[in-house]
Amino acid sequence: MTERVTEVVVTPIAFPDPPLLNATGVHQPWALRTIVELRVGDDLVGLGETYGDAPHLELVRRAAEAVVGVDPFDLADLTRRVSAAVGRVDVPDLHGLTGHSTVKKTVLRVLSPFEVASLDLQGQLVGRPLWALLGGRARESVPFSAYLFYKWAAHPGAEPDEWGEALDPAGIVAQARRMIDRYGFTSIKLKGGVFEPEQEIEAIRALRAQFPDHPLRLDPNAAWSVDTSIKVARETDGLLEYLEDPTPTIEGMAAVAREASMPLATNMCVITFADVKPGFERRAVGVVLSDHHFWGGLRASQRLAGICATWGVGLSMHSNSHLGISLAAMAHLGVATPNLTYAADTHTPWQLGVDVVEQPLSFVDGAVTPPDASGLGVTLDRDALARMHADYLRCGIRQRDDVGYMRQFQPDYELRRPRW
Amino acid sequence: MTERVTEVVVTPIAFPDPPLLNATGVHQPWALRTIVELRVGDDLVGLGETYGDAPHLELVRRAAEAVVGVDPFDLADLTRRVSAAVGRVDVPDLHGLTGHSTVKKTVLRVLSPFEVASLDLQGQLVGRPLWALLGGRARESVPFSAYLFYKWAAHPGAEPDEWGEALDPAGIVAQARRMIDRYGFTSIKLKGGVFEPEQEIEAIRALRAQFPDHPLRLDPNAAWSVDTSIKVARETDGLLEYLEDPTPTIEGMAAVAREASMPLATNMCVITFADVKPGFERRAVGVVLSDHHFWGGLRASQRLAGICATWGVGLSMHSNSHLGISLAAMAHLGVATPNLTYAADTHTPWQLGVDVVEQPLSFVDGAVTPPDASGLGVTLDRDALARMHADYLRCGIRQRDDVGYMRQFQPDYELRRPRW
Ligand SMILES: [Mg+2]
Ligand SMILES: [Mg+2]
Repeated sequence: MTERVTEVVVTPIAFPDPPLLNATGVHQPWALRTIVELRVGDDLVGLGETYGDAPHLELVRRAAEAVVGVDPFDLADLTRRVSAAVGRVDVPDLHGLTGHSTVKKTVLRVLSPFEVASLDLQGQLVGRPLWALLGGRARESVPFSAYLFYKWAAHPGAEPDEWGEALDPAGIVAQARRMIDRYGFTSIKLKGGVFEPEQEIEAIRALRAQFPDHPLRLDPNAAWSVDTSIKVARETDGLLEYLEDPTPTIEGMAAVAREASMPLATNMCVITFADVKPGFERRAVGVVLSDHHFWGGLRASQRLAGICATWGVGLSMHSNSHLGISLAAMAHLGVATPNLTYAADTHTPWQLGVDVVEQPLSFVDGAVTPPDASGLGVTLDRDALARMHADYLRCGIRQRDDVGYMRQFQPDYELRRPRW
Repeated sequence: MTERVTEVVVTPIAFPDPPLLNATGVHQPWALRTIVELRVGDDLVGLGETYGDAPHLELVRRAAEAVVGVDPFDLADLTRRVSAAVGRVDVPDLHGLTGHSTVKKTVLRVLSPFEVASLDLQGQLVGRPLWALLGGRARESVPFSAYLFYKWAAHPGAEPDEWGEALDPAGIVAQARRMIDRYGFTSIKLKGGVFEPEQEIEAIRALRAQFPDHPLRLDPNAAWSVDTSIKVARETDGLLEYLEDPTPTIEGMAAVAREASMPLATNMCVITFADVKPGFERRAVGVVLSDHHFWGGLRASQRLAGICATWGVGLSMHSNSHLGISLAAMAHLGVATPNLTYAADTHTPWQLGVDVVEQPLSFVDGAVTPPDASGLGVTLDRDALARMHADYLRCGIRQRDDVGYMRQFQPDYELRRPRW
């Protein structure tokens, strides 16, 4: 008996997002996601979660029609169907925070939630947690890092959120203290590229002083020139576990890497399989931040992990704003990936307690243990889904646009890469 | 409910092998294999097949004890158990036909039959053919090549086998004709390294004349120096799909590759994950012949395939003397591996009709379609297993030793690599 997908449901949703600052502007008041359900008969539902930008959502909807009838075990067939449905289009996002876009990357982004949902179904059909299908458990839980952002106290015109303002080193240290007290994170990442490099280096020094044992990372999202990057690398010598995407392009990263004492990490220059060979052979990066949302799913992420292990390149995990389905997928993948030796990124603290799943996974000492239940082990909270879909409909945002939102308050704001 | 392995049975067997010649001597009258059964309760049996050399068999037996109680879905746990049972030993084979041995490669060789048997169990527990668990079907069937050998008419003192003598180009062409008539192969590989390179080039020319549309390969198992290899590459320009392991070591192959017009293939210099980075970055090989028996199983072979795809290096498949369990594993892996674009090697024609499985898979137009049944889809022929185990006990051979066997007839025969 071969179970096949009988129905696919695609639901765009929105959830409140604090005014987090980055090299491309500031987060809008609502973050968008798309929830994908692959149903087999009346009882089985496989879940996937992906971006909510309108051009991407349109492709996900197109793929959804093509996926009805697929065997959830036949990922090759799934891939063919999604590729054919998407066609040869390139749908870049507006922020570029995960690097350049290509036709291939567009397909892989659309494929990802269907692949995760298929694996969720596989696990449920087999009666095994997803990590078992991904090759077994290399560790019990996945450590995550405290992901710090410079931020405003509130979206202009709105009430302050629970995290308050962080616009200088003291604010960043206070944010770190609060986040680590609450979640127990054992690594710290600062999203930089917002202020002059000197201020961000000061923030790193302040974090080091207050958290002497936490590995530290700084990620300016390619906001710096090669020369500035080399200067920052020298000034942070001995302070950073890795320096993430200081400058754009494989060539730029390779030039910085030759002069930097710490490994360079990336989720902006090695972002598809086509970048791996040039990126690795030019020694541009020492750590890749994988992300199943744009590498094409969990199996593709495992392929990337295998390449990193073979090349002796480190592996960490990238995060955009996400909800509990993606957190579960990251947890299963993380325990099944032996060489994921760096704490992964997560935006969970910035969700402000909102989620689309019942009983979201919790952080214990900064780490997440995937559930023992079959598949992903998380269940949609249907009331929350309906509410968040209603929020999507009324929030008016259809595409993430950090630059455009920033321009509402600073009309001369420009996206420049590098900026310093 | 988590099914666990309740019993492991390890059975060494032997089957008649024709006097096939290669760069290390000649095949003995009996080929050895080890059959591994992972049992779950009374009804479920997962199958694996591996080498039969005594030192390897000893490690397989040690691993077998450690594997009782494993969840067949937890390949990470399986790997840990096998690694711990094997320990830090290095058990090289005597012939070196798959390159150098290491502690790591020793573990991976032992792991392989347990991994395949676990995947066979997974497929049976899920009710899906193995290819579905390996990511779905990229093709319907796996093309194999006609694997030609120089050979004697008979083992000294024995009756001639059905294939007869092949000691010159005419004999090779006759062998090819017969094998292609019987199996329908659409590619041809000649095992070389037996005679002076000029005679083997003559055989290739004769094959090209008789089979103008069959891609041709020549594999002297590193019998040639770099200079001889370059000379042969020049003389076979335009004749070969690939030239396989003309010379030893990554450095040697890289030197030949710089001068050769055709891709160089290998199952002797890039043979563990540790060889991949140096082999690929030095551009030593254009094609890797994967082999799940020594790369560590089917998942490891998929990892290798992903690396080859990412680096733009071709992928083919290597074969030692094997039986129907391995053929089924190769067929499932082959249909699930999109970039296996070369016909795979197989020794099936040299088995002389003997097999350890009921209803061995058949070749149609030179290709094998994996069965639709769950898992590997092959069943042990218990009578054949008992008979072949009795043959093992009485044949007296405990380790493959092509050199030693050749020396019985040519006392001054020496293993030299390179020889010419
Ligand atoms: Mg980043
Ligand atoms: Mg070979």
